[in-house]
Amino acid sequence: MKGKVFLVGAGPGDVELLTLKAVRILKSASVVLHDALVGEGILAMVRPHALLVDVGKRVGDKRISQEGINRMLMQFAASANVVVRLKGGDPSIFGRAAEEMAALRAAGIEFEIVPGVTAATAAAAQAQIPLTDRESASAVVFLTAQQANCPASIEPFVRTGATLAIYMPNRQHREIALQLSAAGLANDTPCLIVSNASRQNQEQHWTDLAGLTLVSQPETPALLIIGEVARHREAGITAAALYAVAEADRVGFRVSHGR
Amino acid sequence: MKGKVFLVGAGPGDVELLTLKAVRILKSASVVLHDALVGEGILAMVRPHALLVDVGKRVGDKRISQEGINRMLMQFAASANVVVRLKGGDPSIFGRAAEEMAALRAAGIEFEIVPGVTAATAAAAQAQIPLTDRESASAVVFLTAQQANCPASIEPFVRTGATLAIYMPNRQHREIALQLSAAGLANDTPCLIVSNASRQNQEQHWTDLAGLTLVSQPETPALLIIGEVARHREAGITAAALYAVAEADRVGFRVSHGR
Repeated sequence: MKGKVFLVGAGPGDVELLTLKAVRILKSASVVLHDALVGEGILAMVRPHALLVDVGKRVGDKRISQEGINRMLMQFAASANVVVRLKGGDPSIFGRAAEEMAALRAAGIEFEIVPGVTAATAAAAQAQIPLTDRESASAVVFLTAQQANCPASIEPFVRTGATLAIYMPNRQHREIALQLSAAGLANDTPCLIVSNASRQNQEQHWTDLAGLTLVSQPETPALLIIGEVARHREAGITAAALYAVAEADRVGFRVSHGR
Repeated sequence: MKGKVFLVGAGPGDVELLTLKAVRILKSASVVLHDALVGEGILAMVRPHALLVDVGKRVGDKRISQEGINRMLMQFAASANVVVRLKGGDPSIFGRAAEEMAALRAAGIEFEIVPGVTAATAAAAQAQIPLTDRESASAVVFLTAQQANCPASIEPFVRTGATLAIYMPNRQHREIALQLSAAGLANDTPCLIVSNASRQNQEQHWTDLAGLTLVSQPETPALLIIGEVARHREAGITAAALYAVAEADRVGFRVSHGR
């Protein structure tokens, strides 16, 4: 009998940002193929004697290819009951889940996807900013550095007015800033770089588009959030909010009790 | 002494898609102000005798205003130790977290954001499609029906070529389809409507942009995913995937053992 493969989102790094479902499946797995960025605390959830394979590891200059990972998934599924492919963040967002799902379908192997917390929302949470806002940004785009660092592809994104959440800007944030500026984004547009979102060693660097060209290489993994939402932290105190404080004593509401 | 407010993402509905952190905080809360869409199973995590307030409830025609919610947060924080504002999905994405954070900052109340699984990734997981794909969609946009149903705002989004994940298309999916078509999106672009993502009563409706104008009103809450990624389920078996199956017996790799 063939096993079942679970493509599981491990979330941004903090073990507490695993879902209950991810924990349950990790505890039942015989084999876990994990990305290099999935932390020790998360791997400690795996039961003793389960096989852990770091498929993100570089062996010398080489990384295991996507085809190699696909083959491993199929081989393990042929013998193990529960095989987990554990991915940083969420499998559907820059997780290369498409290739793995296609391979599993072709091989007739049952699989299930378990969504996770994606890095952009964890970075926003830690920075205490929203990614969308009724006044300044009614949409958010998740894109890669490769796409942001390309004049032809970045221009329509700038025109949308959406918040831009750029995954893994590693070593390209200056070029990205120049491309965004060339595409018409204002130089005083707020920018935030979050490194190691949700982890103990997380770092935030607040700047603007002009300043982004001057920032030194951030720690990886990093995420770049660009848009008016990144102004929220400084400009949080609005007239409406102060009015609400003044009114706080005069409200009535209905309540129910927990069981 | 003032309490602390946690803006917590409850995820898409399945209680198992809560994070460990959300569960820990819910179990410590004295007061939980929750959206109408947060399900019973999730509210059952709250400890007995904690106060549950459904702030998404309609009282007759009226819903509690955002200002009313802000005032409640401040009032409860003045007396309770742990106040939770529990939101469907993730607080930073269409969660109106901006207004609540501004009010809390203005009142000098400590707060923390706990990210959650957002509906689009849960819908994609359940439908077994990715939201981004190296070949067909290297970005994903999260936007609202209001924005999608507006000729001026939707056109640049169509030009990006990104997957469009439209939150709460309620009653507007036909108009949205017409706007997207007018903005230049091909009529055979695959579309997927997911209702009640991650819940037991979830429903999927697979169609294309032309077919979307003919679909009857989906169950709410719903999410609309538009783009080539929604073709993956049918067209999953590629030559590359079949090659990988044939090669599956010939691979070697390094492994380590779980603790």
